[in-house]
Amino acid sequence: MAKQDRAIRTRQTILEAAAVVFERQGYQAATITEILKVAGVTKGALYFHFESKEELALGVFDAQEPPEQVPPQPLKLQELVDTGLWFIHRLRTNLLTRAGVRLSMDQQAHTLDRRGPFLRWREMLLSLLDQARENGELLPHVDTSESADLIMGAFTGIQMVSQTLSDYADLEERYISMQRHVLPSLAVPSVLAALDLSPGRTERITAELAAVQD
Amino acid sequence: MAKQDRAIRTRQTILEAAAVVFERQGYQAATITEILKVAGVTKGALYFHFESKEELALGVFDAQEPPEQVPPQPLKLQELVDTGLWFIHRLRTNLLTRAGVRLSMDQQAHTLDRRGPFLRWREMLLSLLDQARENGELLPHVDTSESADLIMGAFTGIQMVSQTLSDYADLEERYISMQRHVLPSLAVPSVLAALDLSPGRTERITAELAAVQD
Repeated sequence: MAKQDRAIRTRQTILEAAAVVFERQGYQAATITEILKVAGVTKGALYFHFESKEELALGVFDAQEPPEQVPPQPLKLQELVDTGLWFIHRLRTNLLTRAGVRLSMDQQAHTLDRRGPFLRWREMLLSLLDQARENGELLPHVDTSESADLIMGAFTGIQMVSQTLSDYADLEERYISMQRHVLPSLAVPSVLAALDLSPGRTERITAELAAVQD
Repeated sequence: MAKQDRAIRTRQTILEAAAVVFERQGYQAATITEILKVAGVTKGALYFHFESKEELALGVFDAQEPPEQVPPQPLKLQELVDTGLWFIHRLRTNLLTRAGVRLSMDQQAHTLDRRGPFLRWREMLLSLLDQARENGELLPHVDTSESADLIMGAFTGIQMVSQTLSDYADLEERYISMQRHVLPSLAVPSVLAALDLSPGRTERITAELAAVQD
């Protein structure tokens, strides 16, 4: 294994250990000592990659970034829908994504700036909505900035509720229901009718992505 | 002061102290000892009203219940909108409500059943939506159970986001935007046009409620 590969793996091991400890104890109570113990690396290795607990948290947040790899679609509103579905898939399968979401909602993390993940999701949604506008997909009265805010907020909430009530088991269903409620106030009728909001959509996207990544 | 009045006041003092300590330290780290110190009451007084830390948390949750005192409206969808606006007002002015919301979203509270507040909001929304259906306010395809879930989830999310980004300063604006995005998929056009979603609405409701309570 090349030196660089090893460094990337060590970094990943440390991040996953941090994710585990943040989830278990919350950000405020988590300690570097505990993270070192879970990661099984030396203090030197950890501090080579991350200068502080806050930097570890920001690293975990990165795993919660809006995905950029969703297959491009002729309808940008479909791409917006797909981005959420893909994120839900990652939330179920990826430890770091899950930890990132929980950390961004950790209200006891008083010393951590948690605004980043929310603002970056908002920005990604706004960009897709602006492209949808250029494509002629949106109703004339739509304020893309306001709609980006709303979708980001509503998506945050259904994640919180789904986690509390079903440990994310019903998240996809809640997400599709959210889009069914919101899209009629955004999309022109012909676009609305063409959007795929069926439950099988996630599998098709993840299969397509897996094919690209292989 | 009658004996009963004093008991009610003591109970309230203890609940507010619990709210302060839960907010400061999170549920898991909070201790009865700390709550006693903040409340300035005896251990006996506290245990007379609350048997455990969990019971204190459930008491704080009660302050986060959906309000029942919103003035009745001919349009049940208006009543639904008003209930949210009134809750936002209470969230800004009432320490216990604020603490209840935060506690219901405290993901580190592993030993606390946090489902109650979410389920009771859902139930209240469902009841209003079912009344709206009987009134002929809803579009024929609306599934009231699904819509109640969605509104509860979206409202949860905008509270989380507004708290993180603006300490609730923009919550009313986000809430009105949410309703503007969701109601077109629920209400028949004549009802939609008749709903008051203007920013002045909150002041009118709170003034009306204050007049009733005086």
